[in-house]
Order: sequence, then structure tokens, then C-alpha cells
Amino acid sequence: MTTVIKNGTIVTADLTYKADVKIDGGKIIEIGPHLSGDETLDASGCYIMPGGIDPHTHLEMPFMGTYSSDDFESGTRAGLSGGTTMVVDFALPAPGQSLLEALTMWDNKSTRANCDYSFHMAVTWWSEQVFKEMETIVRDKGINTFKHFMAYKGALMVDDDEMFASFQRCAELGALPLVHAENGDVVASMSAKLLAEGNNGPEAHAYSRPAEVEGEATNRAIMIADMAGCPVYIVHTSCEQAHEAIRRARAKGMRVYGEPLIQHLTLDESEYSNPDWDHAARRVMSPPFRSKQHQDSLWAGLASGSLQVVATDHCAFTTAQKRFGVGDFTKIPNGTGGLEDRMPMLWTHGVNTGRLTMNEFVAVTSTNIAKILNIYPKKGAILVGADADIVVWDPNRSKVISSKTQQSAIDYNVFEGKEVTGLPRYTLTRGVVAIEESTIKTREGHGEFVRREPVTAVSKALSTWKEITSPRKVERSGIPATGV
Amino acid sequence: MTTVIKNGTIVTADLTYKADVKIDGGKIIEIGPHLSGDETLDASGCYIMPGGIDPHTHLEMPFMGTYSSDDFESGTRAGLSGGTTMVVDFALPAPGQSLLEALTMWDNKSTRANCDYSFHMAVTWWSEQVFKEMETIVRDKGINTFKHFMAYKGALMVDDDEMFASFQRCAELGALPLVHAENGDVVASMSAKLLAEGNNGPEAHAYSRPAEVEGEATNRAIMIADMAGCPVYIVHTSCEQAHEAIRRARAKGMRVYGEPLIQHLTLDESEYSNPDWDHAARRVMSPPFRSKQHQDSLWAGLASGSLQVVATDHCAFTTAQKRFGVGDFTKIPNGTGGLEDRMPMLWTHGVNTGRLTMNEFVAVTSTNIAKILNIYPKKGAILVGADADIVVWDPNRSKVISSKTQQSAIDYNVFEGKEVTGLPRYTLTRGVVAIEESTIKTREGHGEFVRREPVTAVSKALSTWKEITSPRKVERSGIPATGV
Amino acid sequence: MTTVIKNGTIVTADLTYKADVKIDGGKIIEIGPHLSGDETLDASGCYIMPGGIDPHTHLEMPFMGTYSSDDFESGTRAGLSGGTTMVVDFALPAPGQSLLEALTMWDNKSTRANCDYSFHMAVTWWSEQVFKEMETIVRDKGINTFKHFMAYKGALMVDDDEMFASFQRCAELGALPLVHAENGDVVASMSAKLLAEGNNGPEAHAYSRPAEVEGEATNRAIMIADMAGCPVYIVHTSCEQAHEAIRRARAKGMRVYGEPLIQHLTLDESEYSNPDWDHAARRVMSPPFRSKQHQDSLWAGLASGSLQVVATDHCAFTTAQKRFGVGDFTKIPNGTGGLEDRMPMLWTHGVNTGRLTMNEFVAVTSTNIAKILNIYPKKGAILVGADADIVVWDPNRSKVISSKTQQSAIDYNVFEGKEVTGLPRYTLTRGVVAIEESTIKTREGHGEFVRREPVTAVSKALSTWKEITSPRKVERSGIPATGV
Amino acid sequence: MTTVIKNGTIVTADLTYKADVKIDGGKIIEIGPHLSGDETLDASGCYIMPGGIDPHTHLEMPFMGTYSSDDFESGTRAGLSGGTTMVVDFALPAPGQSLLEALTMWDNKSTRANCDYSFHMAVTWWSEQVFKEMETIVRDKGINTFKHFMAYKGALMVDDDEMFASFQRCAELGALPLVHAENGDVVASMSAKLLAEGNNGPEAHAYSRPAEVEGEATNRAIMIADMAGCPVYIVHTSCEQAHEAIRRARAKGMRVYGEPLIQHLTLDESEYSNPDWDHAARRVMSPPFRSKQHQDSLWAGLASGSLQVVATDHCAFTTAQKRFGVGDFTKIPNGTGGLEDRMPMLWTHGVNTGRLTMNEFVAVTSTNIAKILNIYPKKGAILVGADADIVVWDPNRSKVISSKTQQSAIDYNVFEGKEVTGLPRYTLTRGVVAIEESTIKTREGHGEFVRREPVTAVSKALSTWKEITSPRKVERSGIPATGV
Repeated sequence: MTTVIKNGTIVTADLTYKADVKIDGGKIIEIGPHLSGDETLDASGCYIMPGGIDPHTHLEMPFMGTYSSDDFESGTRAGLSGGTTMVVDFALPAPGQSLLEALTMWDNKSTRANCDYSFHMAVTWWSEQVFKEMETIVRDKGINTFKHFMAYKGALMVDDDEMFASFQRCAELGALPLVHAENGDVVASMSAKLLAEGNNGPEAHAYSRPAEVEGEATNRAIMIADMAGCPVYIVHTSCEQAHEAIRRARAKGMRVYGEPLIQHLTLDESEYSNPDWDHAARRVMSPPFRSKQHQDSLWAGLASGSLQVVATDHCAFTTAQKRFGVGDFTKIPNGTGGLEDRMPMLWTHGVNTGRLTMNEFVAVTSTNIAKILNIYPKKGAILVGADADIVVWDPNRSKVISSKTQQSAIDYNVFEGKEVTGLPRYTLTRGVVAIEESTIKTREGHGEFVRREPVTAVSKALSTWKEITSPRKVERSGIPATGV
Repeated sequence: MTTVIKNGTIVTADLTYKADVKIDGGKIIEIGPHLSGDETLDASGCYIMPGGIDPHTHLEMPFMGTYSSDDFESGTRAGLSGGTTMVVDFALPAPGQSLLEALTMWDNKSTRANCDYSFHMAVTWWSEQVFKEMETIVRDKGINTFKHFMAYKGALMVDDDEMFASFQRCAELGALPLVHAENGDVVASMSAKLLAEGNNGPEAHAYSRPAEVEGEATNRAIMIADMAGCPVYIVHTSCEQAHEAIRRARAKGMRVYGEPLIQHLTLDESEYSNPDWDHAARRVMSPPFRSKQHQDSLWAGLASGSLQVVATDHCAFTTAQKRFGVGDFTKIPNGTGGLEDRMPMLWTHGVNTGRLTMNEFVAVTSTNIAKILNIYPKKGAILVGADADIVVWDPNRSKVISSKTQQSAIDYNVFEGKEVTGLPRYTLTRGVVAIEESTIKTREGHGEFVRREPVTAVSKALSTWKEITSPRKVERSGIPATGV
Repeated sequence: MTTVIKNGTIVTADLTYKADVKIDGGKIIEIGPHLSGDETLDASGCYIMPGGIDPHTHLEMPFMGTYSSDDFESGTRAGLSGGTTMVVDFALPAPGQSLLEALTMWDNKSTRANCDYSFHMAVTWWSEQVFKEMETIVRDKGINTFKHFMAYKGALMVDDDEMFASFQRCAELGALPLVHAENGDVVASMSAKLLAEGNNGPEAHAYSRPAEVEGEATNRAIMIADMAGCPVYIVHTSCEQAHEAIRRARAKGMRVYGEPLIQHLTLDESEYSNPDWDHAARRVMSPPFRSKQHQDSLWAGLASGSLQVVATDHCAFTTAQKRFGVGDFTKIPNGTGGLEDRMPMLWTHGVNTGRLTMNEFVAVTSTNIAKILNIYPKKGAILVGADADIVVWDPNRSKVISSKTQQSAIDYNVFEGKEVTGLPRYTLTRGVVAIEESTIKTREGHGEFVRREPVTAVSKALSTWKEITSPRKVERSGIPATGV
Repeated sequence: MTTVIKNGTIVTADLTYKADVKIDGGKIIEIGPHLSGDETLDASGCYIMPGGIDPHTHLEMPFMGTYSSDDFESGTRAGLSGGTTMVVDFALPAPGQSLLEALTMWDNKSTRANCDYSFHMAVTWWSEQVFKEMETIVRDKGINTFKHFMAYKGALMVDDDEMFASFQRCAELGALPLVHAENGDVVASMSAKLLAEGNNGPEAHAYSRPAEVEGEATNRAIMIADMAGCPVYIVHTSCEQAHEAIRRARAKGMRVYGEPLIQHLTLDESEYSNPDWDHAARRVMSPPFRSKQHQDSLWAGLASGSLQVVATDHCAFTTAQKRFGVGDFTKIPNGTGGLEDRMPMLWTHGVNTGRLTMNEFVAVTSTNIAKILNIYPKKGAILVGADADIVVWDPNRSKVISSKTQQSAIDYNVFEGKEVTGLPRYTLTRGVVAIEESTIKTREGHGEFVRREPVTAVSKALSTWKEITSPRKVERSGIPATGV
């Protein structure tokens, strides 16, 4: 039973050409002109692109006795409807908890996924046990990325010491550290001060974590990675300060990646001044939205390659959940949706404006992260042998984003009312049509875990360079006796 | 009559995998396991990579009544022996000369080429005729790049006015301007001053054009391109100052490319202090070699993507020719060789040290420039349908570079005595084996002109963005009468 | 006949203390407690500061057969009423005209000045005559600064060659080059294009010279000064791009000064979108007003010392004169007023907001430029022996700026309607009270020319450093015979 | 009993002029021509400058059961012999110890000082007690600076939380935080790793704390100060990374000061490769010496004003004490001498080369720090009323630095063998001649504590700006009920 996508133009991170794509057994088996198969999908006027990969989601994340409202079923359904065919979620051990135990919890949740997925493992504490389990996670569990939180003091946050230990371990294992970069000490202290002064609304969330605070932590994480001898990936880079730290490091040849979110690219801080408390609270996430200047910085980073990936940090809380924080902004659950809208919003504001080429669009939504995560070309490619995770993109299809028509389980949408032009005609997950225009054909449980091997070409090269340039002992004769 | 390259590992700009490559009619017709053909080339222990593209050569360039000593035959032979399968040379009209006439001259020279080639057209003066001929060059002659010299006052140099006019024309035509960026006024004046002070040796060539002078011109060219609304490509970026200008522009989203040379990456300014006049004079080129700090900057740029291409500016003059400048450094012909050594030197100092991955090596020696020049994937790719310009790279093969064993027609080599590890086992040009280890099998005249179409995805996107952000007239009623 | 200023607080660039100031013969003769004299000025609640120096005015400047409307009488009266006690104007030879002849013309105009003044000499063309006259200007005429225009193509503009020659001459003479930094070629070409497209309103003036164009020229001027071995002073630095170039140079130890104008610090580009043509045209100056981001950059530069001086470029044209440019923005005379409002506006938006300390206010309005121009402590100081150019500043006095009440000869004010808090109670020029609150007591012709000697400590130090680091000839034996 | 310094040229931070200086009662009472007094000091051919202030010394500092070997007597004698007339030392409470108690300990040591002195108070832990005592220290004890160590983990180090709390307290009190900026977690971990790998020599000290580690901490300290709303002073800025962080902050208008040491300006990392263990160990200090590139950065910072002060961190340990660290570099006591040589070395390598003007020399050795510490013009000035802390500087006097002839109590000198040109003819401390060429006339116990008031003009301005720009609560009606 084969499927052929016909009459479209293939757009990848580095090619644009007309060809048909033939699929069998969930994989691309042929690319070329005049293909035929059992089933035909018409791509006339459309671009055939690798399905999107969102490397930053929090589906069914535990929070204050409840969970973020999109689970692996609704979340991946939302993703597919917007052209995203793979998500990478975070397994979050509680401090003190075994990494393997946490992974089991997340494994259980993900059985309902409609598309393929993988996990990042979080390092939220440090011990000999964590040190050892990291190896198991990498070698046995197929996870090559470890997340570190520099914020969320008293919960997920690790200090420099722990981060340095974990990064060194990553270097040994050929794994990649990920970092949420905000100075947690400062945020906690400023939050307390704002609250004490009566500044308790959602806007105070933004006040408690200015761009300088993110820039500082980004800079620190990069230094620690440099000392540990590993690459580093900064999640949700939201501001020029963080981007500048990344650029400065890259200008020295350091191997640093930055990931802006679609929200930070298209929404700004004025959202928090909205007179409607719910409106503002629904936009509460960390880092918060920034000014338009910061947006310009992020867009430029995508075009020039100093930032590589556009993600969402999708972590959907309902209005009711957001209202936990009425009277105390620190209790507003952090997170916004975006899985469904990432690709149409980026296309509309990136490709349609000329800020990005179509190839760059594919690179930042799919191919780059596939390479960074070491799953390319299984994912992120339109190549024979690759998984048939494909979006057939209709550049002329439009809609106005609305929570009324969305797949996400929550009751609002931070992009409510925005018009997008450029939407999937079809989304295929391993060869199966999950989305056909507005028709949802997703299959719960269809998604499979994607194993990711360590030791990318970049991490190997970096190890070689670090070894060659490592400090050498000065050999001396006639060392004096100790003075003690 | 098919050829199969067997048992090797394919390395491209973004993939590393084991497969055989089958070639017919000068093109790759199949990639996969267990291929067979009429002829078999063994690639055991080797990497199968796209042949190198050197986008910056001056073969048989007219100079003071003579010519640079490598012509299209010896030059391309030298290139092939080092894994380079395509060169792009410069058609240089004399000021006042028709562009088309100049092109004819270069067409005539290139008939002897052993591998494929193309031309950049230089804009060395400005007039209505040049304006019109640019369109013919692009539309009829298949050339989408125009070179501008900001140095060589009184010869090739154009001023800002001419450059801006030409860049705007490039924007209209979807062509890419290239720039030799040094402030020619300042260089000329400083040269005269140095000579007047008796500073007439080869080292004074370097003194006459410090890094700041290159940085300034780079910065200026970028501004002019930004105003004209076109991308810009800076040739032979040799220093941090120029690289900084490029990075600063890219950080604003500008579309700017930088091209370090293998010479600047691996040789430094101390060469000019050599007590042997010939040694120093043989290294005279513009820009001159710089300090090790500048080298670090260039290497970091290649790794981080702020610089995209490694070239040579191969322009070979014999010692006898160099001696035109005894007693007056301004008469030393500018130029060094490198075509033969670019890839082995870059592999040795880049890949073997871990400064670059193998994929990055392919990107900066071949794929990136193929994309920039809009000839990808015909060139720069190991893909079905691509030209079979292939190098089978033996990472364990070593040699010591020596003018005694080189292909280049000159009597010395600026890399003399350097050991390289990593050399071609085979080099194929459009499917024909031109090099088999030390055996030269090149065929004079085998090379063909490669036509290059304008309007890349990047130039199109930039035009869109510039249109969207172009200044808008303020509509006013009640404008007063003029005051005159 | 002595005057004593009593009961005030002296504020200088580095001191704040209570003391009385006694004046005789136009000079400060004593500073201390409990002084008495023939006349007493009460400074209770006030700051006694060095009178402002505006180093950038164009009084009675010839333009299209007429003149800028403030002459040395009204201009200096306006200055005094706002606390400015010295102006430095520009002698502008027409291309081809003798520098000495031009100076005579300006000498004639300045006889009516109400306060002391000096001149910068412009270098608008280059020849042996200019080279020689520069020495006379410096040695005999007491002028140590030479202005260079990189814009105003076809009129005042010099090219890089001329600029480099002139800067080298400045280095020899110990003089300081000043630069109007905008790329004149690009501005001229863009202006023509805008006009051709029907973009003929005042806003097109701003479109024709974006910040990148100024940044480029600033960068270029700095490089040329570095090669010539002299410090350089960039006038009317209006944008981050220019400021960045200055900072980058200073970070390398180069001796570069930057001068923002009060207009650029407090007014922004939205002025040009005003539906009233006159409103917009009255704000036409070069460089044009910029966005608020650029303002932030300039304020930070004043606080951190990367920018040293606040000036006005006062060049006042009436509405009738501005209307020369109806239908063709290139004919709108460039220039705005500001002499009268510089100090109150800077105090209000700088000191009252905490962006600047009072000492920094004195530094950037008076002392820094006095040092740069080598007239400190005659001017710019409250010291015994200094000229009694003093402003008694009342930090509580307020007014709303209005053309109705201004001293300037024109019929509008670009700061119309702005409230300022902080105004002179008294302004003294060489000991004579010229302003007493709103009462004007200026004396036409009271002003004297201030002679300025060359070879500041900074230029001397730079010469030493340039000599020590100048390139050295490599001594060689056995140089081959020339190859010709 | 009056003293007159005759026939010299007064050089201050902003003036150079010929005048005599008359002293009585330890203060300057008159400046002018032809003065006479009871005693005359001949300054023919000399410069009369404010005595140096070294704001960074550790005299008789407790260490591993012993003390740094220069105490307040020998240390201040060494300082005076090199032209330094005031030192500021550090009172270092042990973690848990009362600040007031620590101050008493240091008060006791300083009674033997030969010149005036003051203290910085270190905050080495945090509690309500520390919070309260800080006020007493500022208001009662006349200390307006608090030192924070980001390194020396397990000893003096404070974490971000403590630092932020202390900085906020400084903001309230109008005090200035000082920071030793190195990431202590990373240093400790890298030190342990190096030792474990057998890298136990003095050079490993440098390996354990690369420039990136200092740059990171500098950046972090600046961010924390910005959030707290206070200026910040970075001690011993040794590298481009730290300097870049300072420049970047200043470019945003932040109030940040940087203090390079004379050692870092003139000695480089190659010292640690010396085959003599003692030689290398004697140079062990934190931060360690860096490469010449970093030196260039520091010199440029002094010239351009992004760095303000040259200090020594004088903390002298004998060779015997240094040998505590044989076999374990972490036990080598950190510290080098410099008090005696700071001014001659800076003059020789700064003024004599043209890198600094004489006025800049005075600024960075004396006046700037006097302003920052709020003791100007009592100290750091040649003004009537100022303390007669004066150095009569003979620019032609030379010597070769040698431990044999030095005043410092230790048995070596890190500048051993360096020739300096520019030395004191006389050094006066509060009017008393302490040094007359090579003759030492210091008086033990002559030195007095210098009280320093809080709330400088800069800290006041910053508070105003922070208040104006502080986040404002969004007033909302109709806030929903909490969701819990």
C-alpha cells in the first residue's frame, strides 16, 4: 500500500525542486517525476516539506497537583494540524528522584501520542546516582540531551556547581546540555520584592525577569559549557541580551545553539498591559514577551544562523488554571500554547515578509533541530529512506487563528485573531495522513519514541579541539621543598 | 560506460553515510549499497565528497605586459590534484572596455581548462553601456556575480558612487555583487609615503594595507549593499576587523557573505620579515597575511557560519615576475598560489584539529559556494542528478608540500615544507578520473563553462523585505507654496 | 569694579561645593567663602557653573543667495539667554577659495557677537595652497581644528584622498580634524532616486540618509584618522551606528570624540511624519532625527564617556527659507535652532531624570569641549584666572519653550511647547551680566575671538605612540636584481 | 611651619601649569607663582602631582595561620617610596563574624601606617546582622564600599542571592559594591580536576581560572548591580572578557567601574612557564596574568575611560610562604606585590610610550578613585584646601627595579630587573616629606584613617533614574476570582 504525493514542489533546507514523493511502510521510498502509487495526494500549488519538529513541549506536565492541559494526544493532534510531526518533551525528575523512574512516568504518558516523539531528560539535582544514570539514559534509553534549569529556585533549579558537573558528564557521554537561562536567585528575590510592594498582577511576572537577567544566565551557561568542553543549547532565547551572548560565543568558535520561540518572535510585552487580567495571565511564560527590538534581534538571528531553531515551549494551561495566580503572579502557571500555530505564524511573518527564505523556514522548523538532536536524516529530510513525516504546505491557504477551531485542549489562544497565510493541505506522520486541510484523521497511539544516539560530529570535533588545546604541565626540575 | 565508487563513506555538507556512487554520462545516477558498473574505484577507508569549488582564481591574468603564470590548463590541473573540480575566474574589463568584449577574452583562455569553470564579471568603471551590458551578462551569458574593487586605485578601483550604481543594478537583476574590500585611496597614499621614506621591501606591502583599512572598506561595501537592497559577498576576508563588520551586519539580518583564503587561515605576517627577499615577495598579496589573532577569528567564523567559503585567490607569479618589485614593493605582482593545497591544508588544520567537522569542511570548500552561486545541486552535492565532480578523500594519505612535486607552473610554493594529512585518492571531473593518487590523468579542454542563473532564494527574499520596509511618502494636504 | 556671586553652590565637571566667586576685569579673581565686591549677584538656591560652550554653530551662513537667519548678534544673544557663553562657528571656504580669505569673511561677521567665539576652519578642497594655509591658520590665526564634510556632494564634500591628506597635515600641525560623517555619494544617489519616485516631502530627507549611512562614514573617518595618526572629532553623532563605531575605536585605544546634538537627544523621527509640511520641514537637518533607540544610545554615551560633548549645529532658517524646498526636499535648507534651549533641555531631560549628574552636565556642555579645543581652563572652568563666563543656574526656574519669547531670529522653535525646569538666573560673559532671568542685557560686539593653540596633550601622546609602533623596514642583504 | 614646592609644573587630572605649592598644617594653602615658605622643596624639571592612591591592598592579611608579609608599616613605606600616599585595605570578616568586630581588627593593624588609609568592608556572608551592621559601617564608621568575592569557594565567596541582597542594601545606603569577579564554583571544580590529573604546578593556577571565567563573573556582577539599582566597581579587571562586559554595560548607560592592576598591564602569562618553580609561584595571584592581547585591551580601556583606576592588589607573600603550595598549587598563597612600583611602571609603560597622557596618569592613579570613593578633592587633587598628599615626580630619574633595594618586606619582586624612568623626587604625606629620592623619611603611625561619606552624585543620579523607570502596576478592574 503506497502513497504518492504528486504535482508539488519539494522544499528542504537546501533544495527547491519539482518532484513527486512515494511512500511505503512509513518511509520515503522514491523521489522523482511521474511517480504513481496506491493512493495519491495532490500537491498542486503546494510545497512538500519535512514535517515540523518542535523540540520544546511540556505535555501533561505535573503542576501544583494538576497537569498542563494538553496531553500527548491533544498536543500532538494540535501539532499535526499545524504541520508539526514530531515533538520532544521533557522528563522532569523531582529533585531526589531517579532519572529512570521519571522517564518511566513520561513513557507512560506518551503512549497516546499521534505522532513521533522523544524526550529530553532534565537534571534537577546532582549526585553519584544522577551521574551514573546519565550513562544509562544515553546508552540504553536513546536520549542524548539533558535539560538544566537556571531558574525556578527551590524547584527545578540547579546551581553552577551542579551544572558544571553535569556538563562535564555530558562531554564524556557525547550528550548535549540544554539550558533554561534565567538567573533564578535574582528572579526569586525580585518576585518577592514586587509582591511585597503590591505589584501582584501578571505584568509583574515580566518585571521580575528582565532581559538582562536572561542575558546573564545565557552568558554563564555558555562559559560553563566552554569549560566543560561540550556544545550547549539555549532554549527559548527571547532577547537581544541572550542572543548577544550566543553570538559573542560563536564568534570565538564556541559551539552554541539558540532557540527562539514563535511567541517571542511575534508577540510583545504590551500584552501584559492588557486591562483584562485573563488576557495578560494567559501570556505568562518564562521568559516573558519582550519589546519589538528584541523581536528584530531574533528574526535576524534566524536569517544569519546565530539562532537555529524555532520552538514553542508549548505548555498549555486553561484560564481556570491561570487563575491560580490571581492576587499573586508567582502562582500563575508558566506557559503558553503554540504547537498548532508555530509553522503558520512563522511562515506568515517570516517567509511572506521575506525575512526568511522557504529553505530557511524548513531549516529552523525541522532540519536544524534534527541535526542537533542527531536524528537527521531520519527526521527533518525529504530523502529516500527518511521517515515520511511530511507536510504538504499550501502557501495560499489562510485562516484567522481562533480558540474556537483549534485542536489544543485549552479555552483560548495567545494568537487569537491573527490571520495566517500558509497552512498544511496534508500532514503525514510516518506515511499516514493525519491532517487533510481541516479534517483531522489523527490516530491516537500512532506515535513512536525516536531514539537518539550521542556523539554528534560537532561534539566529536569539539572534543578533539579541547584535547589539543588543553593545558599542559610545565615540567620542572629542582622544585623546592614545601614551605610548610 | 558506468563508473562505481565503492566501499567509501559519503560525506556531504549535512550527511555522513556509507554508500556506493554510480556514475554515467558525467552525472551521478545512483547512490546506494552494492552498486556495480563497468569501472570500479575503490574508496575503502575514504570519504566520498563533492569536489571542491574555488570561487576565486586569476588564471592567466594579464599583468604589466605579461600574465600570471598558471593558465587554465595548469591551474585546473593543480586544482584537480588537490581535490578541486571547479574554479570561478574573473573577467576583468579594462576601464572603458566593454564587458562583453572582456568576457570573450576570458572565454578564449578557458578552452584549455581540465575541469568545469565559470566567471565573475568585474565592474571596473561605470556608464550607461556597463549598465546595459550587465543585463546581457546575466541573462545571456549565465553570469550572476559582479566583482568590484575598492582598491587598486588608478586601475580596477571603483568609487562609492559607481559601486552604489552597480549594486542597485545587481539588485534589479537578481545578481550578487562581490567586493575586494580595501580602501584604495588610503592604500595608495600610504604606499607612496612608505616608498618615499625608503620603506621599499615586501614587508612594506603589508604596512601599506593594515587590517583597519580592510575592515573599513568591508563595512562600507556592506552599507552600500544594504542601501541598494542586495546581498553582498566579501572576497578574501583576512582579518577580524572585516569579519567583525560582517558579523555586525549579519546580526542585523543583512545578507552578507565572507570568504577567507586558505593562505590567511594558515600563514601569518611573520612571513614578510623573512630575511630572504624572494621568500617575502612570493607572499605578497592583497590583503596581506595577518597575525595569529586574525587567523583565530577566521577559523571561528567558518565554524559558526559567519564566514561561509574558503577560497585561494590563486594568482601565481614566478619568482622572476615577483622581482619586478625589487626596490619598489608596489611593483611586486600581487598574488599567491593555493589551488592545489587548499583542501589538504584546510583538512589538516581544520578537520584534523577538530576546528571543523568533515561536513563543515565540505560546506566551506564546495556546497556553500555552490548555493551562493546558484549552481547547487548541480555542483557541490553528492545527489542523484548532480554532476559527478567528486573527490575520494583519503584521510590517512600524507605528503610534504613542495614546489618540486606540484602541478602549478611556478617555481615555489607558499606552503613549502608543510606536512598535510588528508589527500585525494581520486578526483573526478564530470565522472572522469582526473587524478589517481599521484598520477595525473587530466584532459586539457575537458572543462565546460557552468552557467549560473540569477535571483537566488536569498535575493528574492531580501527584495520582498526591502519592498515591505521601504520608506513611504507622508500624504499631506495644505502644502504651502514654495518660498523661492 | 568687582562683581561677587554669592550664596550659590559651585558645580564644575568634577566638584560641587559652596563658595562665592569674585570677578574683576572679566576674570575670576577669587573663590571662597564670604567674598564681597562692588556688585553682588545673589545665587541662593542656584548652581554657579561654567558658561556653556557650543562648539557647533552656523551663524549667518551663506545659503542659496541668502543667509541662515541667526547672525552673530541674535545667535549669541540666544545662546546667552540659555546659559551659553561661547560659540565656535565654521569658516567655510568655497571649493577653490583661500582659507585665509574665508576666515576674513567670518571675522567680519563675528564683530557683532555678544559673547566670545572662535572658528573651525573647513577644508572643502585640497591643493598645495590649502596644505600651506593650514599652517598659517594654526600658527598665526589661532585655530586648531579643521572641519571635513563627507556629505554635501558637489558642494562642501571631500573624498577619502583629500581627507587623508588633510588629516596627515593635521597630525603634523597638532591640529584636530572634525568630521561631518555621512556617505555623500550614497545620500546624493538616494535623494535623486526618492525624488524621481515622487517622494519629495521633508520626510524623504530622513529617508535619504539612514543611520547606516552615518555609521559607515563615521567608521571610515576614524580609520583614516588612525592611519594619519591624529585624533578625530565626529560632529553631530546622531545614531547607534555612529556611536558604535566610536566605541569600537575607543575600545582599541584610538582617540576619537563624539558630539551628539540636543535635538537628537530629545526629538525623534516621528516629527517628519507630521501632517503639517512646515512642521516637518523646520526639523530638516543632517543627520535627521532618529528613533528613540538611538536616543538611548546617545544618552548612555554621555554618561559613560564614549560621547563627550552636547552641541546644537545651530543653523536657523525661517519658515520662508524652509519653503524653498516645497516640492523638492533636497532644496529645504538643512538646519535647526537650539542655541537657546540646549542647556535647559539637557538639564531637564538629563539631570532631572538622573541620566546625568550635574557634574556630567557641566562636562558635556562646557568643560570637555574646552579641553578638546585646548582652551581649558580659560574657558570651561570656575577657577581663579579663568574667564568669568559663568551661568548662575536656577534648578527650580521653569518655562515652556516658545518661539514667541525666544531670542533667535526665526519664527518657530523645534522645541515649541516643551516645558523645561532649570534655567539661568544670570549669564555672565567675561564678567558682564548679559542675562538676568528674562531680562536681556547683552552688548553687541562684546564678544572676542578666542585663540586656540595646537598640540594638545592627547595629540602629543598619540604621536609618540604612533612613532613607537610605526612599521620598521626589514634590513636584508642579498636582495636579488630586479626581474624586469 | 610652611613648606613650598617651587619651580615645578603642576599636573592634575585635567590641568598642566607652572606654579608653586604652599603647604601648612598638612594641607595645601596656596597655589601660585613666587611662593615662599619656611621650607622649600625644589621641583625643577619635575611634575607636582597628587600622590597616588592604591585602592586595593591586603596588608598583614591573615592567611593559613600566618599573615601577608607587608604590614601597614612596610606596605605604606613601599607605597610612599613609589609615590603612593594613600591605601585602601580590606576588612575581611570571617563568615559568621560581625563586620564591626572585623573592622576593629583592621583598625588595630593600621595604627602603624606611614600614610593615610581607609578600608573597604567585605561582605562574606549574609544575615539580618550583616544587613544592620552595613548601616553602622556606612553611617558611623565612614566606609562607603563593600567588597564581594565571587571566588574563594568555601572561604570568602558569596552566592548570587547574598550578593543581590547586599547590593540592594548598598543601593539603599548609597554605598558602592566592589566585586572580585571569578566564578568560584567553576574555579574550585577545575582546580580539583587539574590536581587530580597531576597538574599541580603554579601554571595550573592560571589554567584553573581562564579569562572566560572572569568575564562571566564580571558580567553577572554587573547584571545584579543593575537589578539592585546601584553602581558597581570591578576589582582587578585582568582580561578582555571582563573589560568587554564592562564596556557593554557602560554602553547601556550602566554605572560600572573597572580596575586593572599594574601587574596585569605589564606582565604576562608566560611568567608561569618559567622553569623555576619559585619564579612562577611568586606570580600566582587571582586573576592570573594573561596574554599580551589582554594587556592591549586594558591599556586601551585606561585611555578611553572604560577602565578608571590602576591598582595593585598588593598582597605580599615571601618565597617561604609561597612554598606552602609545592606539590599543590591550590595552597600557594594568592598575591603579588606592586605598591612600590605601580606608579613608576605605569609612567614608564604608559606615559613614556604615549599610551597615556600625564593627566590621564594622574587620573588613573589618584583622582578617579578619589572621586569614586567620594574623598575628592581632599585626596586626588592639587587644590587649595586639599590634603598635601603630593608627589614631586622626576620624569628623568631612572632605576632598575630590584628586591635588594625595595621597601617591601618580601625577598623578591615580580618586576625584578625592569628599568623604569620616572620616579618620585619627593613624596609628601599630609605635608610631611616621607621620601626624598632614595632617602626614606617615613614616620610610623603618621597615617590617619580617611572617612568616606556615602551617596555620591553618581549613585544619587542612578537612584533617580531607577525610580523613574521602575515598573508600574497595571491597574485593572474586574479581576477574576482565583482559580484555586
